[in-house]
Amino acid sequence: MAAAVVLLAEGFEELEAISIVDVLRRAGVKVMLAGLAEGPVKSVHDVVIQSDGLIDEVDEAGFDAIVLPGGTPGAKRLREDPRVLSMLRRFYEAGKWTCAVCAAPTALEAAGVLKGKRATSYPGNALPSAIYLEERVVVDGNLITSRGPGTAADFALAIAEKLAGPDAAAQTRKAMLLAS
Amino acid sequence: MAAAVVLLAEGFEELEAISIVDVLRRAGVKVMLAGLAEGPVKSVHDVVIQSDGLIDEVDEAGFDAIVLPGGTPGAKRLREDPRVLSMLRRFYEAGKWTCAVCAAPTALEAAGVLKGKRATSYPGNALPSAIYLEERVVVDGNLITSRGPGTAADFALAIAEKLAGPDAAAQTRKAMLLAS
Repeated sequence: MAAAVVLLAEGFEELEAISIVDVLRRAGVKVMLAGLAEGPVKSVHDVVIQSDGLIDEVDEAGFDAIVLPGGTPGAKRLREDPRVLSMLRRFYEAGKWTCAVCAAPTALEAAGVLKGKRATSYPGNALPSAIYLEERVVVDGNLITSRGPGTAADFALAIAEKLAGPDAAAQTRKAMLLAS
Repeated sequence: MAAAVVLLAEGFEELEAISIVDVLRRAGVKVMLAGLAEGPVKSVHDVVIQSDGLIDEVDEAGFDAIVLPGGTPGAKRLREDPRVLSMLRRFYEAGKWTCAVCAAPTALEAAGVLKGKRATSYPGNALPSAIYLEERVVVDGNLITSRGPGTAADFALAIAEKLAGPDAAAQTRKAMLLAS
């Protein structure tokens, strides 16, 4: 069973985070919500979610993907946390799926893994080292990036396709009544 | 400021619940997540969310809408709870917005408010007293119903349009990069 760790920082965009968890778990991917700090985590619109553990407790060998939801304040915390940046580099350099949506691709930029790669983000979040594309979901090598809450389900389905296969992703899309 | 109460029962569909909260709060609607039981509430795919209070603490006079997310186990708990059914009837009879998505329109059916009304639900969730439509979002009088996770953002935007006006709903759709 493939597994993904989703990093939760205070101020995360809740619809993006939940789109990722819902789609991946439906597709049969094991998901761990890892908080940057102890205790429940508050989203950008004040939804309080319990994480499954702390970032320091993540056993990286057990995960095939790292996924960062956005939200302006959450993404700022992600890109300013050295634990996040080193974890992103380790996943990326190991060839594991390295994924971010909305404002969070700025953490990929800060980690230095976007150089010369095709990527996207929420409008206004510059990725100066990348080849910037205005597409809903961009896959380049083992990097997957996307734009915002409205593209988060497609982003999650793209990750599900890599981790659980196209059939599982297609079945999940259909069961959730997501437009194809 | 308009206000909506969203009922959270264990086994709720998390993407539906969060689509509702995120869209409505962005549009300027006050949202209370009211749990059926004390303590955090676990979704159908094991996301644990803190409610803002208990259903018994809801001051109904302060709310313009009641919204029920789906999820098969969550919707079963909603329609089997006499507090939910009587609350739905009071909102409906007061002309307030009475809204449910996915499996949760079965609670509207159980409350007896769908007779002869146009409504929809997740495929397979019969609404024998209603005129059943296979549309993403159905508005009939003060009833708003919708089909599943993939239609939940449109459902929430339809509610936002009623509670906060078409401009706020359109701005929210645009800011979230939701397809129009």
